[in-house]
Amino acid sequence: MPYKKIKGGVCAPKAFLAAAIAAGIKNPDATRTDLTVIYSEQPCVSAGTFTTNKVKAAPVRVTQAHLRAQELRAIIANSGNANACTGVMGINDTRTMADATAKALGLNRREIGVCSTGVIGLPLPMDRITPKIAPLCAAISAKNGTSVAEAIMTSDTTKKEIAIIVDLDGQKVRIGACTKGAGMICPSMATMLCFVTTDANLSKVCLQKSLLEAVESSFNRICIDGDMSTNDTVLVLANGAAGGPRIARGSKACRQFRDALQSVLLTLAKKIVRDGERVTKFVTLDVKGAPTYADAKKVAEAVSKSALVKASWNGGDPNWGRIIHAVGYSRARIREELIDISYDDKPACEGGLVAKTPIDELRAIADLDAFTITINLHLGRADYTIYTSDISPEYIDFNRSEYAYWKNARI
Amino acid sequence: MPYKKIKGGVCAPKAFLAAAIAAGIKNPDATRTDLTVIYSEQPCVSAGTFTTNKVKAAPVRVTQAHLRAQELRAIIANSGNANACTGVMGINDTRTMADATAKALGLNRREIGVCSTGVIGLPLPMDRITPKIAPLCAAISAKNGTSVAEAIMTSDTTKKEIAIIVDLDGQKVRIGACTKGAGMICPSMATMLCFVTTDANLSKVCLQKSLLEAVESSFNRICIDGDMSTNDTVLVLANGAAGGPRIARGSKACRQFRDALQSVLLTLAKKIVRDGERVTKFVTLDVKGAPTYADAKKVAEAVSKSALVKASWNGGDPNWGRIIHAVGYSRARIREELIDISYDDKPACEGGLVAKTPIDELRAIADLDAFTITINLHLGRADYTIYTSDISPEYIDFNRSEYAYWKNARI
Repeated sequence: MPYKKIKGGVCAPKAFLAAAIAAGIKNPDATRTDLTVIYSEQPCVSAGTFTTNKVKAAPVRVTQAHLRAQELRAIIANSGNANACTGVMGINDTRTMADATAKALGLNRREIGVCSTGVIGLPLPMDRITPKIAPLCAAISAKNGTSVAEAIMTSDTTKKEIAIIVDLDGQKVRIGACTKGAGMICPSMATMLCFVTTDANLSKVCLQKSLLEAVESSFNRICIDGDMSTNDTVLVLANGAAGGPRIARGSKACRQFRDALQSVLLTLAKKIVRDGERVTKFVTLDVKGAPTYADAKKVAEAVSKSALVKASWNGGDPNWGRIIHAVGYSRARIREELIDISYDDKPACEGGLVAKTPIDELRAIADLDAFTITINLHLGRADYTIYTSDISPEYIDFNRSEYAYWKNARI
Repeated sequence: MPYKKIKGGVCAPKAFLAAAIAAGIKNPDATRTDLTVIYSEQPCVSAGTFTTNKVKAAPVRVTQAHLRAQELRAIIANSGNANACTGVMGINDTRTMADATAKALGLNRREIGVCSTGVIGLPLPMDRITPKIAPLCAAISAKNGTSVAEAIMTSDTTKKEIAIIVDLDGQKVRIGACTKGAGMICPSMATMLCFVTTDANLSKVCLQKSLLEAVESSFNRICIDGDMSTNDTVLVLANGAAGGPRIARGSKACRQFRDALQSVLLTLAKKIVRDGERVTKFVTLDVKGAPTYADAKKVAEAVSKSALVKASWNGGDPNWGRIIHAVGYSRARIREELIDISYDDKPACEGGLVAKTPIDELRAIADLDAFTITINLHLGRADYTIYTSDISPEYIDFNRSEYAYWKNARI
């Protein structure tokens, strides 16, 4: 990254405080933190992007409404239960979380963003959550940034956070962020939550535009299992605590902010792929030479979602035949006899035919933990990149059953 | 099936002969049959449907051209190599197979349909195939119908054939068929070959129309792994040997033939799903109450392709949350609060919320080898059914690598 990394996560920017607590949401006996809050000591401008799934969790619906009504200044989030497919009760539970957080922090309900992640279809255990919100908010501190990254983990095996310092046209500002997500990861919003804080003094429009562009080339470019979740949310709070003049849309400083934000989100998006459920490979899929952007995207998405292609990656098998067959059914405009496919620049397929590279040279690349596959359609100048993974027998095994959880749930 | 089953397969109809031989196509030392021929003693009318993948294997291209030029009277097919992504050489190899078959049977090249199935991207071993065609054609007999079903198997674990006798407006006729396919199975032409013979005296138009309609509600309705192959082909030969007047399009007898053909193809399509690679569950997915046919189809395809849904089926987990999340990203018009989901008529989700059925009752159904999931959108009257399967850890393991084959191949 062309920016200076600094220590910490969402509390690295000035005047952001956070806390996390164990509320026993998935399992009443658990001691792991699963409820967390981020708070800005100063008013913010805010922006968000959300899942495009038509089945939207209650916190997505409520937070979208809050963002339209007012600027967010705090975020409350829980893991262990997605509060999705929970109807009117789910909406009420989300509002109760927002109300309790607003009361504890002395804010208006609509200044609170609410996020949930976890199992779909079960009501939130509000009897466990509500009493924990006041002590949670009482514990906020600038030292607790990392605790947010930890509390939102579900099937993640590592916490994912980052903070950078960047110069925006002469003004030093900080950006901090954390994310979670490991399954249900698909282009057009992975199954993930991401919280970003910054002390840059941004105009609302600069922030919104920067976020949309940065998400498009980061979280919208990753694919683990091709499933798009009901809860995907990215929220950004910008409190201006770094000072300096307000950064307007279209200014040099706004473009610099967007580039820095994009870099932060892409770093986190790649961390999500690397920590995908039972993933063993990180594959960069570069589609080049497509007649249009839409064609390039169709090819990249079809290949990155193909179960047979992903199984071959798991086996370290440079199986370009499966790749070209997915290119063929992608509905993109292609000409079979023009297609080149390479593994880390070694050609496997040239002009739609097997290339001369010895199979063991290709095999050595496909055996690596990370490699790049380039598909050149030779039909134009559009390109598209997706960061994706293999699918392993262990992934299927891991996702076979949530029965034990449902069996013990109180419906 | 409302038709009388009879013994045999493609040689059950009158005046069809067949043979199979071991040519060692995938492995020179193998003794398993992998080259097969079907021949009609009388001239035929013929029809075919083919993969919609834009990467089409050479035999698909050549057979499509033959069908446009003339009526097929014989089919030569090999397993072990798909002759896909093999360029001009692949086209020439297919023509060589057709020429040798035509010569041995005393036919014109364009009367021969050619089909290949197996690995993509390697040239056919013509040095092994060509010399076997004359002895293969010399061995044709009405007793060898089942040998065709056996010779086209690849990762299939069971041969798949059927024959029926049916009354078409007073004329008894026979339909015989066999198929293969176990991986790369996707709606809109599974990765499969299917050969159908009949001694009905059909007009060309009646046959073509019947085939299109029958495929639409059989092979186009199955999904194992969501991958669509380069070689999918269904061919029908009708030789009229049963006698009786020629059956015209739009006649009662033509409709009866179409219904019988549909029944034959649906039976074979279901056999493909049951024999899917490392499949443990047969799931009938019924989408009802969609605003349009296209919406119903989108929902059925999204659910049947979701890795997380398929993993839950593997685990016998009645996880309706994953089903509704796939409904949500299917791009169909839906209203979350109207959706009902049931397992074998026991409600799991009502109006977008968890239903009152005890989890163990749902679990008992999801534990069965076969069950039906009904998704009712309550937005209209369109419906769509897909026959699909789970995805297992063993499927991924099975498809990890074709490296050993490539390592030993002569390119």
